[in-house]
Amino acid sequence: MAEQSNNSQELPERPKEEQEGEKGPSKSALKKAAKEKEKAEKAAKRQAEEAAKKAADDANDVSKEDYGDLPMLGSQPYVPHADSAKRISLTELAQQNEDVSGKEVTFRAIVENARNQAAKLSFVVFRQGISTIQGVVAASDKLSRQMVKFAGSIPSESVVLVHALVEKPKEAVKSTTIQHLEVHVKQLFVIAKAEPQLPMQVEDAERPLPGEGEEQVENEGRPIVTLNTRLNNRVIDLRGKHNHAIFTIKDGVTLLFQEYLRSKGFIGANTPRLLGAPSEGGASVFEVSYFATKAFLAQSPQLYKQMLIAARFEKVMEVGPIFRAENSNTARHLTEFTGLDLEMAFEEDYHEVVTLLEELMLFIFNGLRTRYKLETDLVRSIYHVEDFALPAAGSVPRLTFAEGIQMLRDDGVEIGDFDDLSTPDEKRLGALVLKKYGSDFYVLDQYPLAIRPFYTMPSAETQAKYDASKPNDGYSNSYDFFMRGQEIMSGAQRIHDAGFLEKRMKEHVTPVDPKSEGLRDYVNAFRYGCPPHAGGGIGLERIVMLWLGLPNVRLASLFPRDPGRLAP
Amino acid sequence: MAEQSNNSQELPERPKEEQEGEKGPSKSALKKAAKEKEKAEKAAKRQAEEAAKKAADDANDVSKEDYGDLPMLGSQPYVPHADSAKRISLTELAQQNEDVSGKEVTFRAIVENARNQAAKLSFVVFRQGISTIQGVVAASDKLSRQMVKFAGSIPSESVVLVHALVEKPKEAVKSTTIQHLEVHVKQLFVIAKAEPQLPMQVEDAERPLPGEGEEQVENEGRPIVTLNTRLNNRVIDLRGKHNHAIFTIKDGVTLLFQEYLRSKGFIGANTPRLLGAPSEGGASVFEVSYFATKAFLAQSPQLYKQMLIAARFEKVMEVGPIFRAENSNTARHLTEFTGLDLEMAFEEDYHEVVTLLEELMLFIFNGLRTRYKLETDLVRSIYHVEDFALPAAGSVPRLTFAEGIQMLRDDGVEIGDFDDLSTPDEKRLGALVLKKYGSDFYVLDQYPLAIRPFYTMPSAETQAKYDASKPNDGYSNSYDFFMRGQEIMSGAQRIHDAGFLEKRMKEHVTPVDPKSEGLRDYVNAFRYGCPPHAGGGIGLERIVMLWLGLPNVRLASLFPRDPGRLAP
Repeated sequence: MAEQSNNSQELPERPKEEQEGEKGPSKSALKKAAKEKEKAEKAAKRQAEEAAKKAADDANDVSKEDYGDLPMLGSQPYVPHADSAKRISLTELAQQNEDVSGKEVTFRAIVENARNQAAKLSFVVFRQGISTIQGVVAASDKLSRQMVKFAGSIPSESVVLVHALVEKPKEAVKSTTIQHLEVHVKQLFVIAKAEPQLPMQVEDAERPLPGEGEEQVENEGRPIVTLNTRLNNRVIDLRGKHNHAIFTIKDGVTLLFQEYLRSKGFIGANTPRLLGAPSEGGASVFEVSYFATKAFLAQSPQLYKQMLIAARFEKVMEVGPIFRAENSNTARHLTEFTGLDLEMAFEEDYHEVVTLLEELMLFIFNGLRTRYKLETDLVRSIYHVEDFALPAAGSVPRLTFAEGIQMLRDDGVEIGDFDDLSTPDEKRLGALVLKKYGSDFYVLDQYPLAIRPFYTMPSAETQAKYDASKPNDGYSNSYDFFMRGQEIMSGAQRIHDAGFLEKRMKEHVTPVDPKSEGLRDYVNAFRYGCPPHAGGGIGLERIVMLWLGLPNVRLASLFPRDPGRLAP
Repeated sequence: MAEQSNNSQELPERPKEEQEGEKGPSKSALKKAAKEKEKAEKAAKRQAEEAAKKAADDANDVSKEDYGDLPMLGSQPYVPHADSAKRISLTELAQQNEDVSGKEVTFRAIVENARNQAAKLSFVVFRQGISTIQGVVAASDKLSRQMVKFAGSIPSESVVLVHALVEKPKEAVKSTTIQHLEVHVKQLFVIAKAEPQLPMQVEDAERPLPGEGEEQVENEGRPIVTLNTRLNNRVIDLRGKHNHAIFTIKDGVTLLFQEYLRSKGFIGANTPRLLGAPSEGGASVFEVSYFATKAFLAQSPQLYKQMLIAARFEKVMEVGPIFRAENSNTARHLTEFTGLDLEMAFEEDYHEVVTLLEELMLFIFNGLRTRYKLETDLVRSIYHVEDFALPAAGSVPRLTFAEGIQMLRDDGVEIGDFDDLSTPDEKRLGALVLKKYGSDFYVLDQYPLAIRPFYTMPSAETQAKYDASKPNDGYSNSYDFFMRGQEIMSGAQRIHDAGFLEKRMKEHVTPVDPKSEGLRDYVNAFRYGCPPHAGGGIGLERIVMLWLGLPNVRLASLFPRDPGRLAP
């Protein structure tokens, strides 16, 4: 195999002067030429000697079958053999209770870095997922110096195939995540060689980014790699161990969301992203060229999940992309994010749904704590954040909006009864709730009607005191959920009666036309018997960001989209 | 409660003539007027008598607290009580092993239909999901005739709250899905009343639609409801029991897909739908207005899932919407559908991935057979189709493309070695495979290179025999999966080396520019060490359609999108 790694030796180029020579050469030119010739001859001789030595070395290379560059997999006829595809996981190896030293293992890994320590010794750090282990390549009567040199020269980030003996190191290895084991390499092949110059280093991606408005802190003299550079080179950035942890956690939230709701009888739905007309406020909707006409990208599955309730699907959930054409360039906004949505019919009171949503969130938080502890700890070792304070089961703080306003006033904030909460107010209220109830997670219920969408059910009191001249006064059966003082979910009881819905559409602060193309089918869905229902929509990236204390929501999106970014 | 159901009695309109009368009336007019007056007086008297009788009846109505229209839930102050929200499921009730007759139950249901059988007897069929049960409302000393009349007059599709006694009927009820039980109503309230005239009947939605090119068969004298009418009124159409079964099965496929792949270490990803440039052929891509620039909707997560492999995520899966701007108005095309995608690094041979994909599909098919038998049987009772023939585990027929061509030729089809298969050819080959191997599911491997995308890895033989003048000759490491002779999945080993990828991009039958905006980042992802990998993309709606033998893929989409349809 080793032969394949030898770069073909090119002959030295002839001196340029020899190729020219129309007119007679000058004396100094002749002298120079002679010198060049001598130099070239020496070089050629040296080259020849080296080649001969190399040929002799290769002939004497006891390891020549044990290292080198593999041909591109899939490009050679494949013959299955006994050991085909039997590979070990480094993480699993490290977690074995039995003594694994002396065991022979084969694994595919990434070269995190490789260095020639001496002529007879190279070290290669191998990485698999979030685990790294030290590899020792030591010359012996069975392992040639050529192989040692080859191992120490593999470019970082190359993919390699390793056959090795597991050993206990004399003392714990400090520079790898697996510290109580190392591998003594017996065979080492490069599967895919990385180019030597990377646009950024993976280790630089593993240092924290500053929060909004904070200064980037230089770390151990390493270059500053900005968020923009990282996102421009996202494939390399994502190789960072903390990024693997972040997206494992993100997938975990989805899994826990679906697992809990399925256990409660919810069915997953796929509602359309392409709509014939904007339905929820035309300002922040993306327009699509659709054959001879136009389409619009869904800003939420709101209207469709309600239509599914009207279609007798009692409990529906959906995980899917959400598009918002908001020109907001903040650390909290994306133009495309993942919505975790649900809607359910209830029996008597919309708080049945609020309770289910609280239990859902507690299930997710507890699942993250137990099943994703390793990943959470890894990310928090980079982005330091207080542990997430969870309420005891069944006692999620649930305040009315009015109570929330009162808490803010008691704390010195000047705010009107029906004013929407600003982001600083929300954070302040979150801090007050944490202090009073010991929970980073709480619910604010009964929001003012005027600041909620047209489909929101007014509260009982609001309906009882209805005043036609002030149709948007009072509260509504709606709620927001908060983590660390930031909103992660918005929800409400929806109006399930077509006549009342039409009335509210016309009376809303921002009136909409019930007969418009985008709303007609929606309103009609409630004419033929629809049960009372409520639901909510959760921003997946926000949960991940707030659970981990990330400084920017972009860090919770594999390939984030904002008004200025559509690539990679 | 009953009072609320009384429509306010309007006084009879005065005869029109009395309102006019500028000139003196004629004799016949006077006579007519006298007659009208007498008639009106009689009517008024009758009305008064009826009102008096009604008032007396109401006063005597022993059931007045037991029926009527409920106020809109959420619109009255809610006081929790002992029985709050305790409701039974009809399906669960029917499946109880113990004798449930004599049990008092409360449930919310839909009125499938209601009829007054006699003054003392009404029948109401209640529906919950895919279960229906007969309700008996019989007058007695505890249940008034007014209540019997009210019950028999509830418009179909209204949502009701029922309190009743479970009984065994004297003989099995033929018109309901639950035949061995009926409920004797004690209380009956309307939660949400349906308008009496529906644009189409739910029972009409429960009859089969014809296949493409087939005539609609009239059934039991009921009106023909076309696919178009059904889709225009999709919320009512979806209420059909078979539709609930179809979408329960669809969710089941997603669940089984994720469950199997998670058990194999796959991680769920959310890749962007908004792209800065079209990446996979510009012809069938939707264009989006994106602030001051343009974006394009993802035609697949192909490039992104590969970039995630390059970013060290070894096994990724994604469930998400896919957009194709193909102006195809067939029974098999949608402009928006759900993709089940996966990509994984492999160790030695891409057949490792093919084997995993085969096992995944068998897991899904077996899961549908066992966990979703009820739903499958229900849909197949409407859309009659042969049971899906499954191969024994581990022996999924896997043919090379060349073998497939040979089978077709042996059957008399004239076809070239490297011709793409037409839809009729595919169906024919499916029938031949079924006959030979007894399986409706099989894999065709090693497709011609020329008919696959640029990122497809040429086969070992093709690379060995490479001829620069015919760079697209030969086969590739790619495969399609088939159900009932129709393609459900396409996949391949992808090129993981940037240099070779650039070469193939330029040499492809439809060359693309590796330096173009949409492909530059993609190509760069493979410069820094990417393991060999393969994957595939499955059309979710196609699996559902073919599993159930549905005549149109639109029936497997909640709100289907095609070139002519963006609503509801």
